[in-house]
Amino acid sequence: MTHGDIRITRLPIVSTWPVVDDGNFAVKAFVTEVLEFGATATREGHDQLAAELVLESPSGEETRSRMFPGSPGMDQFFVKQQVSEMGIWKYRVTTWDDKFATWHHTAVIKLAAGIDQSLVMLEGQQLANELLAAAGAKDKKILKAVIACLGDENETPLQKFESSIALGFAQAANNSPLRPLASSSKPVRILCERKLSGSGSWYEFFPRSEGATKDKKGLWTSGTFKTATKSLTRVKDMGFEVLYLPPIHPIGEAHRKGPNNTLVAQGDDPGSPWAIGSSAGGHDTIHPDLGSEKDFANFVKSANKLGIEIAMDFALQASPDHPWVKSNPQWFAKRADGSIAYAENPPKKYQDIFPIFFDEDPEGLVEEVLGILTKWIGLGVKIFRVDNPHTKPVSFWQEVIEKINEQHPEVIFLAEAFTRPAMMHALAKAGFQQSYTYFTWRNSKNELAEYFRELSQDSADFFRPNLWVNTPDILSEYIQFGGRPAFKIRATIAATAGSSWGMYAGFELYEAVARPGAEENIDNEKFEYKKRDFLAAEKSGASLAPRISLLNKLRAEHPCLGQLRNLLVHESADAAVLVYSKHLEAEFNQGVPDTIIVVVNTDPTSTRETTVTIDLRALGLPEEFQVKDLVTGKIYQWGAQNYVKLDSFEEPAHIFEVMQ
Amino acid sequence: MTHGDIRITRLPIVSTWPVVDDGNFAVKAFVTEVLEFGATATREGHDQLAAELVLESPSGEETRSRMFPGSPGMDQFFVKQQVSEMGIWKYRVTTWDDKFATWHHTAVIKLAAGIDQSLVMLEGQQLANELLAAAGAKDKKILKAVIACLGDENETPLQKFESSIALGFAQAANNSPLRPLASSSKPVRILCERKLSGSGSWYEFFPRSEGATKDKKGLWTSGTFKTATKSLTRVKDMGFEVLYLPPIHPIGEAHRKGPNNTLVAQGDDPGSPWAIGSSAGGHDTIHPDLGSEKDFANFVKSANKLGIEIAMDFALQASPDHPWVKSNPQWFAKRADGSIAYAENPPKKYQDIFPIFFDEDPEGLVEEVLGILTKWIGLGVKIFRVDNPHTKPVSFWQEVIEKINEQHPEVIFLAEAFTRPAMMHALAKAGFQQSYTYFTWRNSKNELAEYFRELSQDSADFFRPNLWVNTPDILSEYIQFGGRPAFKIRATIAATAGSSWGMYAGFELYEAVARPGAEENIDNEKFEYKKRDFLAAEKSGASLAPRISLLNKLRAEHPCLGQLRNLLVHESADAAVLVYSKHLEAEFNQGVPDTIIVVVNTDPTSTRETTVTIDLRALGLPEEFQVKDLVTGKIYQWGAQNYVKLDSFEEPAHIFEVMQ
Repeated sequence: MTHGDIRITRLPIVSTWPVVDDGNFAVKAFVTEVLEFGATATREGHDQLAAELVLESPSGEETRSRMFPGSPGMDQFFVKQQVSEMGIWKYRVTTWDDKFATWHHTAVIKLAAGIDQSLVMLEGQQLANELLAAAGAKDKKILKAVIACLGDENETPLQKFESSIALGFAQAANNSPLRPLASSSKPVRILCERKLSGSGSWYEFFPRSEGATKDKKGLWTSGTFKTATKSLTRVKDMGFEVLYLPPIHPIGEAHRKGPNNTLVAQGDDPGSPWAIGSSAGGHDTIHPDLGSEKDFANFVKSANKLGIEIAMDFALQASPDHPWVKSNPQWFAKRADGSIAYAENPPKKYQDIFPIFFDEDPEGLVEEVLGILTKWIGLGVKIFRVDNPHTKPVSFWQEVIEKINEQHPEVIFLAEAFTRPAMMHALAKAGFQQSYTYFTWRNSKNELAEYFRELSQDSADFFRPNLWVNTPDILSEYIQFGGRPAFKIRATIAATAGSSWGMYAGFELYEAVARPGAEENIDNEKFEYKKRDFLAAEKSGASLAPRISLLNKLRAEHPCLGQLRNLLVHESADAAVLVYSKHLEAEFNQGVPDTIIVVVNTDPTSTRETTVTIDLRALGLPEEFQVKDLVTGKIYQWGAQNYVKLDSFEEPAHIFEVMQ
Repeated sequence: MTHGDIRITRLPIVSTWPVVDDGNFAVKAFVTEVLEFGATATREGHDQLAAELVLESPSGEETRSRMFPGSPGMDQFFVKQQVSEMGIWKYRVTTWDDKFATWHHTAVIKLAAGIDQSLVMLEGQQLANELLAAAGAKDKKILKAVIACLGDENETPLQKFESSIALGFAQAANNSPLRPLASSSKPVRILCERKLSGSGSWYEFFPRSEGATKDKKGLWTSGTFKTATKSLTRVKDMGFEVLYLPPIHPIGEAHRKGPNNTLVAQGDDPGSPWAIGSSAGGHDTIHPDLGSEKDFANFVKSANKLGIEIAMDFALQASPDHPWVKSNPQWFAKRADGSIAYAENPPKKYQDIFPIFFDEDPEGLVEEVLGILTKWIGLGVKIFRVDNPHTKPVSFWQEVIEKINEQHPEVIFLAEAFTRPAMMHALAKAGFQQSYTYFTWRNSKNELAEYFRELSQDSADFFRPNLWVNTPDILSEYIQFGGRPAFKIRATIAATAGSSWGMYAGFELYEAVARPGAEENIDNEKFEYKKRDFLAAEKSGASLAPRISLLNKLRAEHPCLGQLRNLLVHESADAAVLVYSKHLEAEFNQGVPDTIIVVVNTDPTSTRETTVTIDLRALGLPEEFQVKDLVTGKIYQWGAQNYVKLDSFEEPAHIFEVMQ
């Protein structure tokens, strides 16, 4: 075959979506996610085409849904469906010659023009007769009545036609299993993972800081899993679903970093948790200061009882003191002078970290990593936040994630890759359930609008974003210099636009001071203990915690906010006022549509007045409707064009619920 | 495997292009076409990546070309190559760990920072030693010299490094067959067809009009292939390469159409050539008025001698008098009343045409069609212009074209499908070598710029456009009402922007009057004979033929104009002034770049003055260069920004050659 390997079907189905790389990778979805399925399907001539989505669940149940035509001339068909079961779903699109629609279309025109009237009646009878053969009992009755009615000599052709429709001819035809010229697209797989893989709220704290104490001489005692357990209610009160812990393993002493990333640590400086491994053990060991494995297991259980899952860091690198350095030297690269290569980004050197060398003993490494992960899974961890996955081979992650998920399909891997788009996307396709994003560096209205389109549409079939407002590594200029309104704006956007969002402790206290020359907090918790008085701050009104609680409460109450692909940006006339909606159709929300419209002033230092234009058709809204601001409780009459005024110093955002 | 069927390679190659539907269809190319090959390829960490295109010709010759990185951060690599042989080409992209580039990058930074200097020398020696193993004799010598030089104790590290580069370390490394971590993309097929499949100039005339005579009583004598042979020099003088003939078969008498598409023909009205078939025969027969098969074969030979190929119309439909109606009634649909269905688009009826019904005897039809096409191929026809292919199943065309091309790879099918994009694209993927386009209805600057981007970039891998300025069915409003400048503008754009372009006889005579209510010529040649005095028109200056000759001469002289994918739209400050270039790199044109820049006033009723901005980088041009207007012969000094003034009444376009 010179032109192509595939045979074009009798009715060509040109493409279907969602699809990732023509089906080389499964489309990603999570439990409760609503997907819009589409197809470009065409046919010769003027006759009508019917298109149907055939969706097969992991347990083998097949559902068929008729697809609706899109814009005229585009040959596109659409229907939405919700996935509700973990595992591999499959879908295909079938099309067939829609004889009823063709007849109906022709009949309307010809009866209006007064031509071929008796022929039209005959054709209708012929079609009803054809359908009769395979029709169910109810439809048989209808079709017989249609045949009689079209032959009724006492009525005009138009009356006969209208009566046949009133009898239910259309429905009987659509129910028919006769699908002339039936053509099918090739099946596409959808990997449906659990809800938290794509939808959840995350909090990060360093357990060693939670309950850490400093004595009068200035000497610190580390917090432990026991003391950190007390902090779980704080996390719960803010409504978070996942608590992510930086590495909890022994920390190396060689080249240990001191406060503020200084090269020499002092006596009781605890070191960076990412410099993993000491004589006490490596990745499979708990730092002695934090407690025992049992303490950890109890901590996980306590969290789970509160509805919080624990996410563990997985940083595949070693301090020079890591047991691997002696036991498995083949996992480290040698330099030309025979020494072990430390991490560097010339001319910068990171002598406290040995990167892993993957190309001498790849199988051994995979086996070791599977062992480590399996151990923590056994202790109740079902989420791993992977540190810098883009410095390790993508193929390594594909193998590790696949093997873990084969045994533990509930396990979620979050990629901490802030790097080039091709690499971030490759990691997502390799299996990472979700990914950090550029969100912290997208702050203007246009940047956000464009980025949200990318995340919710262009890449949503394989890349699931988690919108973090800060991390121990990232304190963006926007929050360094935007004052308290900046914190409120960012949390509001992350929690309502992101199906997953995250926050690192201290954000709620408006910690905004960076280490000079760096884009991260001064006196960074990565290198020292940190004692914060969350309660006092809240009492004095110096905490964002109440707002965060509200945001997570709204997420719990409004399932539309937990969806990834339903983000729609609307127009505003102001260069700083961002408007977007999240909408869940009634059929996926127990019969009631769930619609949130967020209007936010992205400029933390101004008041903005403008007009926002809502795409009513996309949201299925009438010309007039009521919205309730879930921050203030105020109710407004809204329509396509609406006036808003937002003073960032007072309240930078409306979070509107569309009232039903 | 839960996540995907494909294993990600050690160095991930995310995508390669050109590609059509992930390789389900071969990429289309034509002999002489230059393709830009690209890949998105990434890797972990900071080490450098090398990428190479491996291109295999139909005869099995493999060439490797190093690819060049694109914009920073995009992980993209590019290289252009020209295809020169008909048949299936294959390409893949291989990447590997570019140890030399990594060493070079590190060395430059570390030597500048004064760190690890002796280590850098050692690493260089180690790398040169590794390369030595597989190096050729010449490179071995270089590498040994590099090793010695890097160890030279009399020089500073920087001197040693620079000497090693001067010795040719880079080239020796790039020549190495050692490709650590080598990864390959999957092979993609390119179907390279002959040049006319994508690049050529077409003319259309009705042979019955060429030499037709009218006696004193007003009775016509049809032109014949013999008389039409005399018109070939006219076609040749205008520089056309293909002459397309409307159907030359017997014409039905039942419901024959009269002049101006009237329903009743008079005695000697010749009827529409598309109402094929009479008692004299069908698609395998020549209309008796036109001559014998031998006359036709001679006509084809005469044309070929002049360098003109004959394209035959293939309209798969029948008049009610077609022999098939009796011999093969299964090829026609019956209506409910038992009569044969004629063509209709309710409420319009086309009772002179019976469409073909494909679903009762598809194999029989394919066999018949293959027989007909093979017969005409035997008589010298290598191009078929297929009438309304979109009213026949796409799968039917896939089979027919594939089977014909298996035996006759030189045969070209042109799809006359003016319909929805999905169908036009499906037909192209099914195998049609080229397609009519919406060009006649794209007349404003912005419409043209957008459409050219689509044709030369978005769809060029499978859809090859032929830009017709008119047809017997299309006399656009633009030329109906734009006066002579409109004709000049459209011919200029079609011939210089289109790798293929076409013109129907009469255009050169500025025939602009439409039948009222229709978008086609009045007194249309489809329904009557037409006698035109081309010579007299040219003598009196009332012919566009000299301009057309110039345009086709420029096409012959400038190979850049025959390329499809090299069209680039540049900016102009005026809403009507369209600017585009066609550029062929020196390496694909015997060492001399070939660049044409067209500036055209698309408003036929005004004079425009504006500034045009040329993308110098894309054309490889310096800040200043000379251009020669190939219409007027005038030479201008040009640069990035240029003043132009175009008076459409006088001369609406500059066709600039960039002088070398």
